[in-house]
Amino acid sequence: MVSEDNHEEEIDMIEDKLASLSLKIPELLKAPPHVETPATWVRIRGDKAYISGHGPQNPDGSIAGPFGKVGSEVSLEQAYESAKLAGLSILGSLKRELGSLSRVTAWLQVRVMVNTVAGFTRTADVANGFSDLIFALYGRETGMHARSAIGVQALPVCLPVIIDALVEIAPAGV
Amino acid sequence: MVSEDNHEEEIDMIEDKLASLSLKIPELLKAPPHVETPATWVRIRGDKAYISGHGPQNPDGSIAGPFGKVGSEVSLEQAYESAKLAGLSILGSLKRELGSLSRVTAWLQVRVMVNTVAGFTRTADVANGFSDLIFALYGRETGMHARSAIGVQALPVCLPVIIDALVEIAPAGV
Amino acid sequence: MVSEDNHEEEIDMIEDKLASLSLKIPELLKAPPHVETPATWVRIRGDKAYISGHGPQNPDGSIAGPFGKVGSEVSLEQAYESAKLAGLSILGSLKRELGSLSRVTAWLQVRVMVNTVAGFTRTADVANGFSDLIFALYGRETGMHARSAIGVQALPVCLPVIIDALVEIAPAGV
Repeated sequence: MVSEDNHEEEIDMIEDKLASLSLKIPELLKAPPHVETPATWVRIRGDKAYISGHGPQNPDGSIAGPFGKVGSEVSLEQAYESAKLAGLSILGSLKRELGSLSRVTAWLQVRVMVNTVAGFTRTADVANGFSDLIFALYGRETGMHARSAIGVQALPVCLPVIIDALVEIAPAGV
Repeated sequence: MVSEDNHEEEIDMIEDKLASLSLKIPELLKAPPHVETPATWVRIRGDKAYISGHGPQNPDGSIAGPFGKVGSEVSLEQAYESAKLAGLSILGSLKRELGSLSRVTAWLQVRVMVNTVAGFTRTADVANGFSDLIFALYGRETGMHARSAIGVQALPVCLPVIIDALVEIAPAGV
Repeated sequence: MVSEDNHEEEIDMIEDKLASLSLKIPELLKAPPHVETPATWVRIRGDKAYISGHGPQNPDGSIAGPFGKVGSEVSLEQAYESAKLAGLSILGSLKRELGSLSRVTAWLQVRVMVNTVAGFTRTADVANGFSDLIFALYGRETGMHARSAIGVQALPVCLPVIIDALVEIAPAGV
């Protein structure tokens, strides 16, 4: 019973941090009718959650712009913000799937795919929009993750960035 | 003995579904002499199979076209079909490695890399060529997978798409 | 005590092979001040090491050129060498994290991302710069890995290639 109490506190901690940062995890994606999405956003198996590529969303669940190539239509600053929003999208999917964001016991590996013009050199700066969010919420120990940040040729609906990930999770109700 | 019988039935089920869909898993890749391939198509370790990037093949094992950029030389419909053929290539590698395709107990994470022109927005529709195949064969529970679908700048031999994946497997002979 | 002796011998074997190939694992990356890097190069959890995208480095820890697009500014031969250097960078991170490179008990999955011009067809040949190194050091059994080799639009600081990976590791001090 003591550990359950602790767990409840932990749940509050992540949610509280989101609120204290004035951040909202978005509703389930409301994609326009012609836009295809993966069959699932999160695949749970054993103590792992395998996370599909997520793009930036607005709090109401709609896809968030700006759209286009980072380095021309989209600035580095905007792309950093988009990566942060993609992180919030991932957190939304995890919360819907896991019930509590505190069930994530370790971030493991993250791939940040930025829709860039040729020769754009700052994909890692874009990716920090995601990593900074995760560290702010989970701290350096739980939040630490291996990461690759690459510039790609195209993404669904001209999103500026999508991010996929692998996290370790605790069993439900523990 | 009862469970072995069930297992045999299961083996037949996946193979039967392939046949009922008039689909054939291709022979081992016959690459042209100058074409390099990964040292292995599937890396088995514990209860996981780590799957190298696979492109589309013809049933005889040769590389299947069309070749080139999706959005210019290759249409969306052709690329969907290529993604399906890449899925069959993966199944071929899994069958050769595992003996039976029913040893796959869970699809986990899939990355679909489409060779696109800049600004191509429908990488997820291409990826459905793969996902639809897996769902048709394995159903929604075993077949469900996290997925990312990105447009890349180049692929080996101008393939329109390659796909890599991670699956959970059952021990042999169980 | 016998097994510890064996372990010591094993440690020497990998280090000896590096020396016999006249290869040096580089120092910790000395990135120019404006260059962002992942928060960690290797994320250890359980029996896995999740490895961030690594680029080529010189032995002193500085980023190694040539820089630019493979297929125009950078030749295939140079890119092969860059992939080998990226492999040495990964080994450097693993050694700093694990203490001994012999704690890697299985290479599992590797992604090679080459900064290419459109239509470059030989990403797999580039990737062999990495794979050949791993096989030379670890042999075919421990070193075997699933692999994808793609051409991307952009990489940090115009690196010609970055590589990320997943390996299985033995517990420390065993």
